Amino acid sequence: MLRKVYDVTEFLDGGSRIILKYAGKDATHVHLLAPCSRYSWIYSAEYDPIHPPDAITTNLPKEKHLGPVEPDTVEKVEIHITDEEKARLERGENKPSLSEVLNLHDFEHVAKQVMPEKAWAYYSSAADDEITIRENHAAFHRIWFRPRVLRDVTEVDYSTKILGNASSMPIYIASTATALGKLGHPDGELNLTRAAAKHGVIQMIPTLASCSFDEIVDEAKPGQVQFYQLYVNKDREITKRIVQHAERRGIKGLFITVEIVDAPQLGRREKDMRQKFEAEDPSEVTKAGSDGVDRSQGAARAISSFIDPGLSWKDLKWFKSITKMPLILKGVQCWEDCLEAYDQGLAGCVLSNHGGRQLDFARSGIEVLAECVKNLKEKRGLSFPNEKFQLFVDGGVRRATDVLKAVALGATADNDYIDAAVGIGRPFLYAFSSYGVEGVDHALNILKAEFEMNLRLLGAPTIKDVVPEMVDATNLGIHIVSVPKDNLYESNYDMMQPAKWRNEKLAKL
Amino acid sequence: MLRKVYDVTEFLDGGSRIILKYAGKDATHVHLLAPCSRYSWIYSAEYDPIHPPDAITTNLPKEKHLGPVEPDTVEKVEIHITDEEKARLERGENKPSLSEVLNLHDFEHVAKQVMPEKAWAYYSSAADDEITIRENHAAFHRIWFRPRVLRDVTEVDYSTKILGNASSMPIYIASTATALGKLGHPDGELNLTRAAAKHGVIQMIPTLASCSFDEIVDEAKPGQVQFYQLYVNKDREITKRIVQHAERRGIKGLFITVEIVDAPQLGRREKDMRQKFEAEDPSEVTKAGSDGVDRSQGAARAISSFIDPGLSWKDLKWFKSITKMPLILKGVQCWEDCLEAYDQGLAGCVLSNHGGRQLDFARSGIEVLAECVKNLKEKRGLSFPNEKFQLFVDGGVRRATDVLKAVALGATADNDYIDAAVGIGRPFLYAFSSYGVEGVDHALNILKAEFEMNLRLLGAPTIKDVVPEMVDATNLGIHIVSVPKDNLYESNYDMMQPAKWRNEKLAKL
Amino acid sequence: MLRKVYDVTEFLDGGSRIILKYAGKDATHVHLLAPCSRYSWIYSAEYDPIHPPDAITTNLPKEKHLGPVEPDTVEKVEIHITDEEKARLERGENKPSLSEVLNLHDFEHVAKQVMPEKAWAYYSSAADDEITIRENHAAFHRIWFRPRVLRDVTEVDYSTKILGNASSMPIYIASTATALGKLGHPDGELNLTRAAAKHGVIQMIPTLASCSFDEIVDEAKPGQVQFYQLYVNKDREITKRIVQHAERRGIKGLFITVEIVDAPQLGRREKDMRQKFEAEDPSEVTKAGSDGVDRSQGAARAISSFIDPGLSWKDLKWFKSITKMPLILKGVQCWEDCLEAYDQGLAGCVLSNHGGRQLDFARSGIEVLAECVKNLKEKRGLSFPNEKFQLFVDGGVRRATDVLKAVALGATADNDYIDAAVGIGRPFLYAFSSYGVEGVDHALNILKAEFEMNLRLLGAPTIKDVVPEMVDATNLGIHIVSVPKDNLYESNYDMMQPAKWRNEKLAKL
Amino acid sequence: MLRKVYDVTEFLDGGSRIILKYAGKDATHVHLLAPCSRYSWIYSAEYDPIHPPDAITTNLPKEKHLGPVEPDTVEKVEIHITDEEKARLERGENKPSLSEVLNLHDFEHVAKQVMPEKAWAYYSSAADDEITIRENHAAFHRIWFRPRVLRDVTEVDYSTKILGNASSMPIYIASTATALGKLGHPDGELNLTRAAAKHGVIQMIPTLASCSFDEIVDEAKPGQVQFYQLYVNKDREITKRIVQHAERRGIKGLFITVEIVDAPQLGRREKDMRQKFEAEDPSEVTKAGSDGVDRSQGAARAISSFIDPGLSWKDLKWFKSITKMPLILKGVQCWEDCLEAYDQGLAGCVLSNHGGRQLDFARSGIEVLAECVKNLKEKRGLSFPNEKFQLFVDGGVRRATDVLKAVALGATADNDYIDAAVGIGRPFLYAFSSYGVEGVDHALNILKAEFEMNLRLLGAPTIKDVVPEMVDATNLGIHIVSVPKDNLYESNYDMMQPAKWRNEKLAKL
Repeated sequence: MLRKVYDVTEFLDGGSRIILKYAGKDATHVHLLAPCSRYSWIYSAEYDPIHPPDAITTNLPKEKHLGPVEPDTVEKVEIHITDEEKARLERGENKPSLSEVLNLHDFEHVAKQVMPEKAWAYYSSAADDEITIRENHAAFHRIWFRPRVLRDVTEVDYSTKILGNASSMPIYIASTATALGKLGHPDGELNLTRAAAKHGVIQMIPTLASCSFDEIVDEAKPGQVQFYQLYVNKDREITKRIVQHAERRGIKGLFITVEIVDAPQLGRREKDMRQKFEAEDPSEVTKAGSDGVDRSQGAARAISSFIDPGLSWKDLKWFKSITKMPLILKGVQCWEDCLEAYDQGLAGCVLSNHGGRQLDFARSGIEVLAECVKNLKEKRGLSFPNEKFQLFVDGGVRRATDVLKAVALGATADNDYIDAAVGIGRPFLYAFSSYGVEGVDHALNILKAEFEMNLRLLGAPTIKDVVPEMVDATNLGIHIVSVPKDNLYESNYDMMQPAKWRNEKLAKL
Repeated sequence: MLRKVYDVTEFLDGGSRIILKYAGKDATHVHLLAPCSRYSWIYSAEYDPIHPPDAITTNLPKEKHLGPVEPDTVEKVEIHITDEEKARLERGENKPSLSEVLNLHDFEHVAKQVMPEKAWAYYSSAADDEITIRENHAAFHRIWFRPRVLRDVTEVDYSTKILGNASSMPIYIASTATALGKLGHPDGELNLTRAAAKHGVIQMIPTLASCSFDEIVDEAKPGQVQFYQLYVNKDREITKRIVQHAERRGIKGLFITVEIVDAPQLGRREKDMRQKFEAEDPSEVTKAGSDGVDRSQGAARAISSFIDPGLSWKDLKWFKSITKMPLILKGVQCWEDCLEAYDQGLAGCVLSNHGGRQLDFARSGIEVLAECVKNLKEKRGLSFPNEKFQLFVDGGVRRATDVLKAVALGATADNDYIDAAVGIGRPFLYAFSSYGVEGVDHALNILKAEFEMNLRLLGAPTIKDVVPEMVDATNLGIHIVSVPKDNLYESNYDMMQPAKWRNEKLAKL
Repeated sequence: MLRKVYDVTEFLDGGSRIILKYAGKDATHVHLLAPCSRYSWIYSAEYDPIHPPDAITTNLPKEKHLGPVEPDTVEKVEIHITDEEKARLERGENKPSLSEVLNLHDFEHVAKQVMPEKAWAYYSSAADDEITIRENHAAFHRIWFRPRVLRDVTEVDYSTKILGNASSMPIYIASTATALGKLGHPDGELNLTRAAAKHGVIQMIPTLASCSFDEIVDEAKPGQVQFYQLYVNKDREITKRIVQHAERRGIKGLFITVEIVDAPQLGRREKDMRQKFEAEDPSEVTKAGSDGVDRSQGAARAISSFIDPGLSWKDLKWFKSITKMPLILKGVQCWEDCLEAYDQGLAGCVLSNHGGRQLDFARSGIEVLAECVKNLKEKRGLSFPNEKFQLFVDGGVRRATDVLKAVALGATADNDYIDAAVGIGRPFLYAFSSYGVEGVDHALNILKAEFEMNLRLLGAPTIKDVVPEMVDATNLGIHIVSVPKDNLYESNYDMMQPAKWRNEKLAKL
Repeated sequence: MLRKVYDVTEFLDGGSRIILKYAGKDATHVHLLAPCSRYSWIYSAEYDPIHPPDAITTNLPKEKHLGPVEPDTVEKVEIHITDEEKARLERGENKPSLSEVLNLHDFEHVAKQVMPEKAWAYYSSAADDEITIRENHAAFHRIWFRPRVLRDVTEVDYSTKILGNASSMPIYIASTATALGKLGHPDGELNLTRAAAKHGVIQMIPTLASCSFDEIVDEAKPGQVQFYQLYVNKDREITKRIVQHAERRGIKGLFITVEIVDAPQLGRREKDMRQKFEAEDPSEVTKAGSDGVDRSQGAARAISSFIDPGLSWKDLKWFKSITKMPLILKGVQCWEDCLEAYDQGLAGCVLSNHGGRQLDFARSGIEVLAECVKNLKEKRGLSFPNEKFQLFVDGGVRRATDVLKAVALGATADNDYIDAAVGIGRPFLYAFSSYGVEGVDHALNILKAEFEMNLRLLGAPTIKDVVPEMVDATNLGIHIVSVPKDNLYESNYDMMQPAKWRNEKLAKL
């Protein structure tokens, strides 16, 4: 099979030896045969590109398309299966049956063990000390319920609309922060497309999906709704082509990514970076010396460097001129920007910190939501949900209760319009990385069961009934760190012990 | 011995193979010979039904009563004692003597080891991530005492009245969230009846007790007060029969359960669900594949599916028309519903989240109590305790101090009426699961000793003297989650060490 | 040597078999030869009474004094040295040299290992779940300093006055909550008397000292100041005798204990109670069955049962009539009682929860201090320190900084009178239990070094300069318990790891 | 080689046997041949003095300069390499390559393993229970970002000015709290000078550097900016000589240290003190007995005892009379002193607690910053950054985000003047202790990469754009300690477990 070859030399710094090592090469240029193949050579001995051809064809200038190459002519890299890899494959054989997977946490538990270590590191890693990625989840735990009783919940309906499109649940599939679905499964994002179709939920297609945009759209069932997550190219003509193509293909919402302003789509996540060093020849690493931190960004930088850090508010008018799709800003992180988006007539905002992968100590989307709702009410008289301007949240969701907390904070009781939703990403990636499309299907089943039960227990027969009064979010904005531990005192303290067994050896203590 | 057989086919989904496996069966119908026998086959080789006949006879329509069956004709299931089971029985022989059990925690410690693992999982499990079950206990730790000194506490009296009935302590026995007492001990709830009689405390009889309602009432001593906890049947005629029967048998209070609105009396508690998979043939589990989450609910769903999710405020008038017993709502979780209950003329509310087994992130009863007292005072001028409308709390109680905190928050100093009480459930189940009726007796003795000492130390000679000013509950509503740990920083920090021993090997470090 | 015998039968319940077993006995009466000998038989093979003769002679009615007994005539109890005891004695040989003991924590670390396990359990134990004992220490960690710079601290003076008596440091020795000094060292409280003399600090003599009151007073150097901590006897004539004797012997302050209103001086501390069971013959324990919780209180109850739970505010006038010593209430726990003490003309209050040994969830003294200062200022216009009414604190102190925080909260800058002090108890007990009088001496040296350095660093040349503005106590009253941990989420999270070593086996990780 | 000898007898107490042991001596005087050699004898077998000659020559009176000594005439101390030392050296061979060091934490991780244990103890130790040193870091975690989107961040510039001098980043190198750079590397502080030159950042030269002041100044490149951190000598003539010499050598700012008012530059840090005992002959330690705590301060006291604890506000006028360098107070810890410094016309303050090494429970510099900015605005109408009065912070910094939080709190949007900076100390010491000058270079590279990325993600193209609205510091002043753990309850609770593997042995759990 012929493969296309691209010249990505200018995106590479001298340190990107991983690509040099595993990608096809000739004497003068680096050819990106297998971008990110640092992951794939474990997953697939056939060097399946993780990045789709179109991420490259669309975003690289034409003169860098070098044409096809016969794989046989490319320098071979010998693959040997390590003991660790054998153990991993054995874990795959031994994994829990799907029926034992009871919640979204379980998928993560399985994925962590059956995915290639590097793919796991890529998906699970986040910025700096990874405080924000965990805060995203923890923030939900500071919101508590105030359920109502003696309401007729014989019939429970957890369907909703998202940007006017029906959804069976108040969630959409947002694998955009990690993307690169083929790291987890050969069918990549198509697993999500298929399960979304079955369950009537909406998939947001990431720019950096492993499958090409058209592949993913082609896979959709008739009438299946899809959104598109856009990275804005420095070359606006390219962006225009992408956007108008998406609109033609029937995309129902354009999510302009604004929390990514630098290249590091794959880089500067240290857990991910630590992996890289292991892959290399230790002797080479030793020689590398202190030649800066550039190498750490590898292929990621090459792929993502087209993103325009100069994107600004004044570009929004242009977007409106090239498409009629609803425009949503993805990555808003304070009420001031949310208000500006409203004033500029956009369709909504996703309050997101990109899964904790960009700025550490950015606040969680759910915390920003509470701030936005309050300020847009005070300053513009808006109530939520609102037909004209919608707020979405992503990051850290693991339970239907997390979603319902977000719905409660963004919903208002005196409004007929129902349009509340929360993006869920990594859990679905873990689901298909462990069990393929059946995993995603099972994950959605779990969420449905949780939604049904929790709406009943909340005393809310429909999503519309999940109102702000049903949650206590008083403590949402409290970011505390305890006074450091007093080790001398604590090591002197003997913890209390339970009743003594006659023969302690026989007790399970 | 003949056993009755019931047709529960319609309550079962295809996945309920546990019942299929262990229950009697004929060619066309599933007969619920031994509901919940998934627990009992370890406990008792004789398949003693955990659910009482009356839970079935009363709640199933008549046409499903199929008549008696000769046990010998039922397909036999071979029971083998595993090594784990042997170890458990050995732990039972080796358990601490009752005199070494110093507090209610100790019963839990013992029960955890001497109960069948599945019974422990059933009793101890709760909803989702089990945050609320632990919050129920933790919330008490956010309330601190402000004791008074130099008050004459020579005589201390911790007796009270509950709905006008004398109680030797400000507690009642509320095993309603778990019920199924025979999982822990062959005499089931009768252990509670007997100890309650001895100590002059009130037992609330659960609908899903393992012993029949009449058995439990028959066991009571003359004059012994009992309450009844009701699940409302979709068929109101059945409910009417149950309620009027209870009134005739002398029940002094009807606690209408409102926090349960779905079927999952036994299901969707994941710790419990994990147990089920172990019990099955691993090869079958493997084959089960991803056929949804239904199986997880098993027999529980069958039994509890009669509960009416359509119950609503407008049904209360009907209840008043069929009984003169005081009506109390069990499961109220916000002041708005508490106010409504008062306005509708009910006798009180139990502020409860069903032991954390229903909606995770529901707040603790004690937190809701503070909110209700405040709002009923502001909006209706009520003070507590109040003769006309009583507030009860359950969940998480382990010490007399926990009870006294609740009493303080719900009591007012300028009111002669004393009617404060707190429901305690699991600790008594653990007490009889470990030591039978003697365990419950000992548990009540411990509580009495704690009440006596703590009233003295509080400077409160009677329950009436336990007033709001005796507690600082400022922080009760604070639900914080710390900022996630900074592992790199912390792993670099060397904890301080104590003075060095001359020979470290001889020191206990 | 002849020993005196007392009839304590009426103080004993049937379960007090420890005394029956180890004390002298005749056919009809229990004679308290060796009260608390349950501790002493390990410490001393000679059955040295831990309680002083005068605690008994003074508090028991005369008719219970049975006269002397010849020890040889008393039933012998055979003592055998266990392996554990041998290991303990070896640890004593191996303990760190005093010069390696750098802070008060270290004494506790050493004492924990070299004391008999039961004596350690007695000293270190506290009420219920031992929350308050630890909160006493933790509360200081919620107070932070606001030091001043560029003040001349060439000369630093940390001396103060306590009730008008000079003290070289703003502390006094308050071993009153545990007392029973001979459990730790054969010279008991005399160790404290001697070190106090050397360092010019004041000792408060506990009613339940192991040495007799007169022994301790006799040991004092000329001019050495001592206070007396009083338990008020039901028989006021006995109390009068004690008080007037103390005054005659030169005691400078009478601390009337009000936080103890029940008998449990030694009992209902579960860590202590667990020890007892081990000491007994396991077969007897087994036979004991469920005969209540009384046995747990043992000898302690016998000794402390004379304390009058009827003591009340109206008794204070009588105290003033029998002595001219300054009267201080020890054990006040809220501002309302503190105000009452002031209004009744007392000399001060010790804000104390008896070292966490009485009511669990009582607040720390330091927290109560802030409340009292605020309210006495608002309601009576008082400022602190105040010549007419002094506030003291005890509990949880381990560092001079702890003391200085209390001084700051109770001191006012516009007042010449300096009278601030904090009681320290257990650390000195641990000091002499580990190293005898030299230990207490070293402990006081450590405190002096800490006071000197910390006053300099605070910019406060004298105790008078330690003013409220030097601390930030905003968070003192915050009692939080975090939302329970989400184990599934956390177990999936991989903590970040540091840089990889070339050969991990050679690194210390 | 001849060495100079000084008479430091009067600075030594009897316990300073370490010096006696390792330093040259004659019959009547102690000669400080190798001060702090307790560290150096491991590092260097040649007894290189850690303290520079000028620290001694400048600060000791002339009559104590005894002249040179021939090393051969000094009593030899035999050095043997222990197994621990061998392991340490082996770890040095095996350390991660610089390219694997991804953040400042990693340097600390490496230094901890490759430095001599005693040097690590000296650098890493802090006061008392080391609460403040950790709070310094933790405080940053209570500040969260509010990033802005859609701002043009194509060009990012993180340069700033510090006291009017250009700096490539908003940091300066402040190794002043630990100083003694030769403990970590033979070139000591020169490593910092060299890397600072390369990266265009400013070094603050510590009084107690291991290299002499002139050595460090000589090492600077032409135009390289340096500051000087001053300890004020009791003999003001000496101070005057030092200050005027510094000014002549081109120092651009004089940082007068005010948080050190006692001698304990090296002493009373217990982790450091514990090390000392190990070094001595155990038999001697044993004999030492309880002769006070003085020994613990060793050589440190000798060196630092010249510092004047009498320094006060009225001395500032004198400083202005002797130099034209900008005067900054280093160690201000509350707004009142900051205001005074402003009113006295100084150039600024460093809000610092000396790396947690002085007063435990002093608040973090970042917390004090927020307080100062607020009060100087309210009381003097100042806004920050401010050309006339600058605020700096040090302590606990590990990430560029930490720095940017400080910049945000001290900057104002309506002010053109940019002068924000944060001092970083220990991370650079760890960097050169592990990797020499290349380590510091790499550390600065890491910070640059972090600044560039984080400014982009914040939506702040320059340091001036990092405004107060970009952070949420609401919780900065919250110092909480959780209610102590309830061990009996928690030990009974079974944490939830993930899905079961078919064969648990094959899973990584």
